[in-house]
Amino acid sequence: MIRERGVRPRCATCGREYEEPVQRCECGGPVEFGVFRGVPRGGDVWRGFRDFWPVEPDYRLSLGEGNTPLLRSVLGSRLGVELYLKNESVNPTWSFKDRGTFLAMSYVARAGYRAVGTVSTGNMAVSVAAYASRAGLAAKIFVSENVNAEKLKAVSVYGVDVVRVRGDYGRLYFESLKLGERYGVYFINSDNPFRVEGYKGISFEISREVTPDYVLIPSSSGGLFRGVAKGFIELKESGIIDRLPTLVAVQAEGCSPICRAFKEGWDRVKPFGSPKTVAKAISNPNPPSGDAVLRLLRMFGWRCETVSDEEILEAQRELAREGLFVEPASAASVAALMKMRKEGIIPEGVKAVAILTGAGLKTLDQVPEPQIEDCSLEDLEKCFEI
Amino acid sequence: MIRERGVRPRCATCGREYEEPVQRCECGGPVEFGVFRGVPRGGDVWRGFRDFWPVEPDYRLSLGEGNTPLLRSVLGSRLGVELYLKNESVNPTWSFKDRGTFLAMSYVARAGYRAVGTVSTGNMAVSVAAYASRAGLAAKIFVSENVNAEKLKAVSVYGVDVVRVRGDYGRLYFESLKLGERYGVYFINSDNPFRVEGYKGISFEISREVTPDYVLIPSSSGGLFRGVAKGFIELKESGIIDRLPTLVAVQAEGCSPICRAFKEGWDRVKPFGSPKTVAKAISNPNPPSGDAVLRLLRMFGWRCETVSDEEILEAQRELAREGLFVEPASAASVAALMKMRKEGIIPEGVKAVAILTGAGLKTLDQVPEPQIEDCSLEDLEKCFEI
Repeated sequence: MIRERGVRPRCATCGREYEEPVQRCECGGPVEFGVFRGVPRGGDVWRGFRDFWPVEPDYRLSLGEGNTPLLRSVLGSRLGVELYLKNESVNPTWSFKDRGTFLAMSYVARAGYRAVGTVSTGNMAVSVAAYASRAGLAAKIFVSENVNAEKLKAVSVYGVDVVRVRGDYGRLYFESLKLGERYGVYFINSDNPFRVEGYKGISFEISREVTPDYVLIPSSSGGLFRGVAKGFIELKESGIIDRLPTLVAVQAEGCSPICRAFKEGWDRVKPFGSPKTVAKAISNPNPPSGDAVLRLLRMFGWRCETVSDEEILEAQRELAREGLFVEPASAASVAALMKMRKEGIIPEGVKAVAILTGAGLKTLDQVPEPQIEDCSLEDLEKCFEI
Repeated sequence: MIRERGVRPRCATCGREYEEPVQRCECGGPVEFGVFRGVPRGGDVWRGFRDFWPVEPDYRLSLGEGNTPLLRSVLGSRLGVELYLKNESVNPTWSFKDRGTFLAMSYVARAGYRAVGTVSTGNMAVSVAAYASRAGLAAKIFVSENVNAEKLKAVSVYGVDVVRVRGDYGRLYFESLKLGERYGVYFINSDNPFRVEGYKGISFEISREVTPDYVLIPSSSGGLFRGVAKGFIELKESGIIDRLPTLVAVQAEGCSPICRAFKEGWDRVKPFGSPKTVAKAISNPNPPSGDAVLRLLRMFGWRCETVSDEEILEAQRELAREGLFVEPASAASVAALMKMRKEGIIPEGVKAVAILTGAGLKTLDQVPEPQIEDCSLEDLEKCFEI
């Protein structure tokens, strides 16, 4: 069902081609599909860009993912740029992960798997749980042992198996793929080939509304960055846009293995000691697509930027003050723009898009205690001072 | 700016007409706009149904509300009906309230108010806070004294004034309108005339995809019910649909003032003793649009149905098992359908739409503790039994 579409999977690292969309290359690199070329049409992003998906989207499995709003930011004018916010927090499970999960599930259904899995403690766990339930498939969600019970509720509610695993979390990624293959459980991990393809929709949707100079992408495993990059590359190769925007991979200072390797001039991304950041959703210390992102950054002269927790929380407040309550990882994209403007790295007047990856509701514990005014109904008038 | 559109506001109770969209009639009844007639066009719901709004939507204030997915439900086939789920949990603040807040804010901006307010402890508080911030206006959010601090974080994060009020919460609704008028603060409460108009978009969007026989609507203040009803009435009056669906107002047994009045044959809705239900978002014991809903139910031969907390939580689990994690109030619509099918009130084979009002993430505290399996990385294989 893959070869029908004429674009074969290949290793993003060594270039080796495969007949089937294997999860990873024998060299250890992530596998990706070749460049799709096509003609954009009307309709939602899945139907409008149907030439560009490696597998036909299975709409029976859809929860209505993608087709998210691109909002003109109020903050932009203060920063001297035309800023747009791609709000991924209004996806069916309130993060961008749903785009990738949906496309991967479309493959899973056609390939006939009876169970799926993922390794995640956050957005991806929720997303895979929801789509597996929608498809009527069993699901194994592997979480790390230090995840809190409150967060697990948002996963377990979908009726999937949640497994808390003691041991190295980075190794779990590879172990899950190996065992999944043996037991016929398809793992839709962070940089699964179909998942990455699903993220291209973000670029496609942006291209319908603006032609950005810069796109800021919170980056952890590297899956989202690779997907957005591939989307813009395919738009250019198809003659839909004239030039690529400058992509910026954004990481938290407390966990920035990709930016460190980029700045140090290393060939490969090395694991980052002990991650420490409020932006939990981008705190993968050993990103499985790190090397692939590094290559993209260098090939196209793109950028990697780190931001402090303070800068992230400031950006989160700024976004809330224009009506968007996002998780800290999302705010990192806007924090990076603020920093790069201050340092003059991003020039005045450009068009920039920041990707807001997920909803703040999932990370309410990181919001400071509210300041509440007290009032009695009798004295209500006193509380009308603005 | 209202009369330009040719449809004057009038009292939903006594019929008195007004020149301006006052918040309530002197008789105490809620004020509503007359019936709009128009031609549907392409584009999103705001542009496509532009003949039907009492004020021009101000897109600078938009956060991308409405245009939500209508999903075919898996549960429907088990119940012997064609069931569609209108998923309002993917609005910008994750509930249907955003549709009404956006339209009301469009009026606020044109009328030149510098501050807005609302009386709510839940979805509406979050929604008004977000849109006020987006518009750069001050906001007063009045909450009841027993609301928990965690919930208030999701409101206060937008940078608005949160005021905790001691005293009768029902009276606060009317006091806020009175003082708001005096101090130039426009209150966008549960059944504000513009808010109710905004909810028509739900009916308009449904009509683009299916022609339902039944629409199930979680009902509290009555604002959502009135909006959805008016939407279908305008579609019929405009010749876009041939017949009205049967609307079902759904309430929780533990707080069902409208259904009680309907069943008892009362002329007016009386306050409901002490509300007790897991469905907090539909637990208004003294609904300000209760009488107006009662009249609609009788005029069109529609229905009012109550469901127990047990039935609500069962429906919530059913929905999660097809990928939709909603708040208990949302699940009430599906619970009512299940009950009405069991009792034969809704016949086999009909097309039904259940409105899912808001996201489950806001009510995680009502989800039971998850059952988690433990595993070590070394023994991972053992955990692959499905």
